Amino acid sequence: MPDLTPAHNRRIVLAARPQGLPQPGDFRLEHAPIPEPQEGQVLLHTEYLSLDPYMRNLMDEIGPGYAPSVELGGVMPGGTVSRVVKSRHPDWREGGLVLAGAGWQDYAVADGASLMSLDGMDRPSLALGGLGMPAFTAHVGLLDIGQPQPGETVVVAAATGAVGAMVGQIAKLKGARVVGIVGGADKRRYALEELGFDATIDRHDPGFARQLAEACPDGIDVYFENVGGAVLLAVLPLLNLNARMPVCGFIAHYNGGADLPVAEQDHLPQLLATVLQKRVRMQGFIILDHYGPRFDAFQREMSAWLAADRIKVREDVVQGLEHAPDAFTGLLQGRNFGKLVVKVA
Amino acid sequence: MPDLTPAHNRRIVLAARPQGLPQPGDFRLEHAPIPEPQEGQVLLHTEYLSLDPYMRNLMDEIGPGYAPSVELGGVMPGGTVSRVVKSRHPDWREGGLVLAGAGWQDYAVADGASLMSLDGMDRPSLALGGLGMPAFTAHVGLLDIGQPQPGETVVVAAATGAVGAMVGQIAKLKGARVVGIVGGADKRRYALEELGFDATIDRHDPGFARQLAEACPDGIDVYFENVGGAVLLAVLPLLNLNARMPVCGFIAHYNGGADLPVAEQDHLPQLLATVLQKRVRMQGFIILDHYGPRFDAFQREMSAWLAADRIKVREDVVQGLEHAPDAFTGLLQGRNFGKLVVKVA
Repeated sequence: MPDLTPAHNRRIVLAARPQGLPQPGDFRLEHAPIPEPQEGQVLLHTEYLSLDPYMRNLMDEIGPGYAPSVELGGVMPGGTVSRVVKSRHPDWREGGLVLAGAGWQDYAVADGASLMSLDGMDRPSLALGGLGMPAFTAHVGLLDIGQPQPGETVVVAAATGAVGAMVGQIAKLKGARVVGIVGGADKRRYALEELGFDATIDRHDPGFARQLAEACPDGIDVYFENVGGAVLLAVLPLLNLNARMPVCGFIAHYNGGADLPVAEQDHLPQLLATVLQKRVRMQGFIILDHYGPRFDAFQREMSAWLAADRIKVREDVVQGLEHAPDAFTGLLQGRNFGKLVVKVA
Repeated sequence: MPDLTPAHNRRIVLAARPQGLPQPGDFRLEHAPIPEPQEGQVLLHTEYLSLDPYMRNLMDEIGPGYAPSVELGGVMPGGTVSRVVKSRHPDWREGGLVLAGAGWQDYAVADGASLMSLDGMDRPSLALGGLGMPAFTAHVGLLDIGQPQPGETVVVAAATGAVGAMVGQIAKLKGARVVGIVGGADKRRYALEELGFDATIDRHDPGFARQLAEACPDGIDVYFENVGGAVLLAVLPLLNLNARMPVCGFIAHYNGGADLPVAEQDHLPQLLATVLQKRVRMQGFIILDHYGPRFDAFQREMSAWLAADRIKVREDVVQGLEHAPDAFTGLLQGRNFGKLVVKVA
């Protein structure tokens, strides 16, 4: 069998910090020598690359505490399913499949300690989605912060996305009523028929806020915040007393927040009034903080749900590393349908 | 001794819903017959009336869940120290002193079940402040939501006010470093010398935000939110990872939010970014929810602190019911110095 792997490392680096939505010129595809692992390291070949909204934040200059910004000229970061092609670490054999953070490139060297084995996994790309970071984010945010009770109403936006679809399905398994906000008729149908949500709203509909109110006749008990913007503003008047709002992201603002209906108005007083009057608990969380104490419990529960077909996973697979920038820009606009991964090798 | 109590009931009613800061014409002083208690009721004569910022919210038309709006023509509500002058309830003897919610008037009838005895209390007006709702608000918000740890930095605004002074002093007793935001040199001196705060900032100072940063070299772990506006915007960049923000009020916005430096800008994205990146927990609370499970524990602890002079209380006493509207408007502008009460009888 001929060796089809490239003799060099293709890598996509940050060429410029985006103004608003990332443009093709903000990325640059480079060719570099394949790196050599040192003692204690392995050389990884990327099979699948995960694309996730948080990456947009890392393209900006940001302060300490979140995650480090990507340097200009630096490789775009990201979770990967990778093959060990050379090992200088006793724990990792060549040919094994691992979960790594190799970023937007064909090859990377990694410390052995930073890897997780995926050997024996039927569908290893799930390690980037349904059994990985996005589903773990949904699990921690919804269950630990949102704490939905049977019969309560849970609202989630981007509801067919990697995180949102999990939030809604886990909430259903916990006995909640789930209202999903999506973009487009196909996604509405999928959320209702495949994911089993109780109602869906199309965020592009001009009557969106009224429809959300109609879909939540008993108000909203848990709003899983991953978009902000117009969705958040429509949610605020519907929140019930003692509502919970896990804050996982706010993709509507990542590129400048142009979707806000009245962008020149200050909505901070409205948020404060709601938080006070409705005794809302709002809590930001970054999933990286929770791996140690919480990941094993998540993986056990989610594996069982997937095996029993109680949770459905949909992947949106893009072929070829060179298409990662386009696919990523589409993700920020909601063009993907399911967990977005790039098949690299 | 001649009976100097009026032969009619003076009461201050809501004449118009305020636009921004309440104006004299938004209130009306009326004279009405003294009401008669029915079986199971008592007639109360107001000795002290509490004035508190939350009353401003009740002057607006507000949705369900917070507390009912005052009707146009309705008596302004408020906590009172009242004397039982007629009793048709077996538990209450005439001449006894009680904590009640008689509102801005000389006389009121009340159900016996809604009262708390203040007999034997040396300084009964404390039931409206240091041993009452404002101090209880500070205790619940700071300890249950804020959870300051020894060595952490706690920031509180309106820091010589009824709630703020308690927040700062309780935080000191729990071993935190306390930075108080006040208006004016007298209040700075009082907060430093009498209340024992570690640093104070004058909110009128043009260099306010920079000074706050300098006063919080280790960042902010707990921000007790009772003002919003420019103070909140100065606090946001200083919050530490896992900071807590009990939301008790936001007086800067009650009259339209004119103190915001850039009012035409939407600060909601900045708040969301901070909550997410710093994993902030923000939680609104309304003290009325907490009396049942929590008030006794508060009163025991606070009584002991007051008896041991570990907590100081300052009252700003206004003489005469007719001055309540002016005094209340002053409260909203920070003109009071200490817990504001009106000596009615």
